[in-house]
Amino acid sequence: MSSNGRSNDPEESFMAEVNNFFDTAPPLKDRLVISQKLKEFIEHNSHASGNEASKRKIVCITSGGTTVPLEQRCVRYIDNFSSGFRGAASTEYFLKAGYAVIFLNRRGTCQPYCRSLPDDPMLECFESTNESVQVRSHAEAIRKAISNHHAAVESGVLLKLQFTTIFEYLQLLQMIAGALRDLGPRVMFYLAAAVSDFYVPWESMAEHKIQSAAGPLDMRLAQVPKMLSVLRKDWAPLAYFISFKLETDSLILLDKASSALNKYNMHAVVANELANRKEEVTVVTPHGKTCIRREAWTDVEIPLIELLAEMHSAHIEGTLQS
Amino acid sequence: MSSNGRSNDPEESFMAEVNNFFDTAPPLKDRLVISQKLKEFIEHNSHASGNEASKRKIVCITSGGTTVPLEQRCVRYIDNFSSGFRGAASTEYFLKAGYAVIFLNRRGTCQPYCRSLPDDPMLECFESTNESVQVRSHAEAIRKAISNHHAAVESGVLLKLQFTTIFEYLQLLQMIAGALRDLGPRVMFYLAAAVSDFYVPWESMAEHKIQSAAGPLDMRLAQVPKMLSVLRKDWAPLAYFISFKLETDSLILLDKASSALNKYNMHAVVANELANRKEEVTVVTPHGKTCIRREAWTDVEIPLIELLAEMHSAHIEGTLQS
Repeated sequence: MSSNGRSNDPEESFMAEVNNFFDTAPPLKDRLVISQKLKEFIEHNSHASGNEASKRKIVCITSGGTTVPLEQRCVRYIDNFSSGFRGAASTEYFLKAGYAVIFLNRRGTCQPYCRSLPDDPMLECFESTNESVQVRSHAEAIRKAISNHHAAVESGVLLKLQFTTIFEYLQLLQMIAGALRDLGPRVMFYLAAAVSDFYVPWESMAEHKIQSAAGPLDMRLAQVPKMLSVLRKDWAPLAYFISFKLETDSLILLDKASSALNKYNMHAVVANELANRKEEVTVVTPHGKTCIRREAWTDVEIPLIELLAEMHSAHIEGTLQS
Repeated sequence: MSSNGRSNDPEESFMAEVNNFFDTAPPLKDRLVISQKLKEFIEHNSHASGNEASKRKIVCITSGGTTVPLEQRCVRYIDNFSSGFRGAASTEYFLKAGYAVIFLNRRGTCQPYCRSLPDDPMLECFESTNESVQVRSHAEAIRKAISNHHAAVESGVLLKLQFTTIFEYLQLLQMIAGALRDLGPRVMFYLAAAVSDFYVPWESMAEHKIQSAAGPLDMRLAQVPKMLSVLRKDWAPLAYFISFKLETDSLILLDKASSALNKYNMHAVVANELANRKEEVTVVTPHGKTCIRREAWTDVEIPLIELLAEMHSAHIEGTLQS
C-alpha cells in the first residue's frame, strides 16, 4: 500500500476500481425476480439426457448499447449507438442451432424475429374493424414473429432480460455469469452489446440537472473498468468467450481485434466495420483469421453462428477429454 | 465588425451562430417528401368554412428528447431523457379539442393512444393460432389505440414527423414554422420536447470513433444557439407559443420558468418538476401563475389543454379585433 491508501499493485488497484464501480452503482431493481427467472431457465435447460457433450448448450447474447447517466436524477446521458440487429439475428440462429439463449438486450432495440417489421408494427400493420383487430400488412412476417417468439419463450429456451444503463448491464451480466457458473464449457458468452467505455462515477455526478447558462460545458469522463477481464477470469472462468470489436476505421480494426483477443483471453473476437457490418465480419482466433461474407440476400449471422457453434463444440469436447 | 471578422453586435453575432449551426448541420433526409406532406396537411386543414375565428386551429407539438452526436460516424451521442408521455397525451387532448396536430416526435418514444400499452405490444399482447393472429391481452386498449390512430391520421388531422438528432429536430421545426406561417395566430407551438442545450459542432467533431486507450476523456461541448428566440421572432412571429421548463430542483423551477417567459416572449411557460410532473404543473403567463393538478386517476393534460385552448381562443379573438 502506498501512503494514499491505494495499492501499488496494478491487479489489486484494478480490483479496487471494479469493486468501487459496483459498490457505488445504483442497485438493480427486481433483482430477486430476475434471479428466480434465471434459476428456472437454467434448471429447465440442464435436464437434457445423454452424456455431457450432448447436453444443451447455453449462450448469453448481449445486444444494444448501454447508457451512462450524466446526472443522478437522470435527464441527460451518453448513449452508445447500436440497433441491436446483430444480437437479434444471432439469437434466432443460435436457437435454430439448438442453443438455449439468454438475450440480454437494451430496452427498445431490435428483437428476435422482428427484424423485417416496421418500427411501430402495431400501429403500422394492424387495423381495427367492427370491434375486432386484424392484420392489414406484413401479415406473414407478423404471424411468424409472434409465433416464433412465443414458441421460444414458452418452450423455455429463450429468456429475455433488459437493461438501459451501464450499471444495470454489468450487474445483470454478473448475475448471469454467477447463475451459469456450474455449467462450465457448455456456456458461451456472445458479447455483441456496445458497452460504454467512459462514465461519470455515480458519486461524483451532479445531483440536479446541469444548468446551461454559463458558456460551454466541460466534462471529464472516467474510464469504465475493463469488466471483460473480470468476467473472463473470475465470473465465468470455464465459459467460451466471443467478443466483438466495432470500428469506423478499417485501418485499425484487425489490430484492435487481435489485441482484444490477447488482452482478454477471448476464444474469438468478431471484427466488424460500421459501414459494412451486415455484409462481412472477420473472426479472429488465436489460430488465425476467417473472413465471413453473407450470401446474397441472407444474413451474415448464418455462416457466423455456424462457425462459432462448431468451434464451441470442439472446445467442449477438448475440455471433456483433457 | 471587429478585426477578427466577427460582429461586435450581439444580435448579429447570434444570427451568425444560428446560420452557422444550419450551414454545418448534416442535411435532412426526405426533405421533399416531408415538405409535400406538410403542404397537404395544411391545405386540408385550412378549408374549414366560416369566419376566421371559427377556422380549425393547428398545434405543432414537439415531444421526446433530441440527441447530440459526439462522432460524425455516429457511435456515441448525448441524449436528453424524455419518455414522450406528455407530448403523446397532449396530442390526444388537442385532437379532442378540435385542433389539427403536427406531432413532431423522437423516434421510439410514446405515441398518442398507446400510453397504457406494454413496451412491446405486438409480442406481448398478440398470439398466433392456426395461421391467424389474435389479441390475447389488453384487447380493448389495443383496439382503441389502433382505431383512434387510424381515424386521426386518415381524417387528416394528425401528422406525425420524427427526429432523432438536434440537427433533424431544428431543421424540421424550421420547415413546419415556414409552412404554417400564413395561418397567423391560429397556429400554436407547444414545445414539450427535451432539446439539447449542448452540442459538438459537426465540423469540430471526431470523424472516427473516439479511442478509449488513453485515460479519462475530456470533452468541451458548445451551447446550442437559443433557437427558441429565432422561432418566436423570425420563423413564426404571429403564432401562439407555449414552452416547457423541466427542472429536478423545485427551488429554482418557477424563477427559471418566469425568466424563460420574458426572455423568449412566450405566451405561457409550463413549469414542471421531474418528480411530480404527471400530477401537477404550473402555467406561468405574463398575467400570473396557475397551478394545475390532475383529478384522481386522470391525466393532468386534461385541465392543462383545456386552459391553453381557452387562452389561445382569446388570443385569436384579440388579434382579429385589433
